[in-house]
Amino acid sequence: MKKIVLLRHGQSAWNLENRFTGWTDVDLTPQGMQEAALAGELMKKEGFMFDKAYTSYLKRAVKTLDIALDKMDESWIPVEKSWRLNEKHYGSLQGLNKAETAKQYGEEKVLLWRRSYDAPPAPLKEDDPRSPRLDPRYKNVPPAQLPLTESLKTAIERLLPYWQNVILPQLKDAQTRQLLIVAHGNSLRGIVKVLKKISDADIVGLNLPTGVPYVFEFDQNYNVTKDYFLGDADAVKKQQQAVAGQAKR
Amino acid sequence: MKKIVLLRHGQSAWNLENRFTGWTDVDLTPQGMQEAALAGELMKKEGFMFDKAYTSYLKRAVKTLDIALDKMDESWIPVEKSWRLNEKHYGSLQGLNKAETAKQYGEEKVLLWRRSYDAPPAPLKEDDPRSPRLDPRYKNVPPAQLPLTESLKTAIERLLPYWQNVILPQLKDAQTRQLLIVAHGNSLRGIVKVLKKISDADIVGLNLPTGVPYVFEFDQNYNVTKDYFLGDADAVKKQQQAVAGQAKR
Repeated sequence: MKKIVLLRHGQSAWNLENRFTGWTDVDLTPQGMQEAALAGELMKKEGFMFDKAYTSYLKRAVKTLDIALDKMDESWIPVEKSWRLNEKHYGSLQGLNKAETAKQYGEEKVLLWRRSYDAPPAPLKEDDPRSPRLDPRYKNVPPAQLPLTESLKTAIERLLPYWQNVILPQLKDAQTRQLLIVAHGNSLRGIVKVLKKISDADIVGLNLPTGVPYVFEFDQNYNVTKDYFLGDADAVKKQQQAVAGQAKR
Repeated sequence: MKKIVLLRHGQSAWNLENRFTGWTDVDLTPQGMQEAALAGELMKKEGFMFDKAYTSYLKRAVKTLDIALDKMDESWIPVEKSWRLNEKHYGSLQGLNKAETAKQYGEEKVLLWRRSYDAPPAPLKEDDPRSPRLDPRYKNVPPAQLPLTESLKTAIERLLPYWQNVILPQLKDAQTRQLLIVAHGNSLRGIVKVLKKISDADIVGLNLPTGVPYVFEFDQNYNVTKDYFLGDADAVKKQQQAVAGQAKR
């Protein structure tokens, strides 16, 4: 039986400071590294052995993957990175503190930007130093494809070609049994939306816990037969509620 | 001007214990991690920005690469791993202490095995649990290609197709400016041998220091115009002598 495991990166410096991160390349905190190590140990204990792993261009995801694979003794597996697995781009909010932004724009507006399906925050200006079009790491991506802001909708739209053209064909490959995807709250929402056929309205309410491996099992027609988190179910619920409550702090 | 940087992994647990490692997947020591970090900082200071990196299936090389890229803020670049970049396979000596082996077989024999060009140590038996043919990580490699022992000659012979068919074409790609290869004493010897057209007799005397980036610059016909180590030249010499003296301890 084929499986895909989704893993959301652990705590980053800006999670801790409660700032909008998006495509900003902030590092994991020591706690984030520990979350990654625990996720790796959990997957190892459950006997997972991945044929391939996917992650974003952002170091909080890459490092979470590296740490987890190290704990599993699977550092040797092929890893593919794609900007399409990056977090949702938060436009001009990137770098701002969430509580301050809430004070300035009102909590309602911030909640809309964070959690509506199709309302993007104000975009970066073309010449903003934060623009991915000026970042050498994206030099091989046509500039018009690189966002200056994103809604959940447009973030999922740029993720989907990677799912369709890269990950899904790999899952269907006869040699593949298990794949691992380590990414971000919103890019992983996109994958869960496709896998579980969740509506636009409902996907907004889905909050994935950080550092908890989320397993999908497939039948021969690549339909999901079962999905579940590894580890303690109550702890997972508490983490999900903590994520949902983050805008209020 | 195009460049390739070779980096030999830092100290591993078995370097410290002075045991034959070969394909055994031992971890870096804290000192090995520090060597990797220093190499990354040095490459960053010199302004290196890699288009792609290559490493072996062995975690002491993979982790050296991960740590160095992290220090350079280049965790996002594509990385390709190959068993062909693995260390020379030490056959039935893998796991044995070098000083003990020297006592048992005589220092001369051990030096021959370690440093002759074409004398491989006694091979592993087919059913030896140390055999790579029984290791799931090599399941996609035809068993006959997986060594049960290697001389420097046969190790270089299995490395060369990867150099010719993967790394060299990537270097010639119009988009490529700089490539990084993080591997092992003997697989890197193979690359240096090809790049500098070193004879079979002379390559045996080449001892690469661990954790010191070794830069090759190329002209338009992909001939080496210049090769040099980054960092302090005297320190590099001392490290090379330490490596050469290791069998005597």
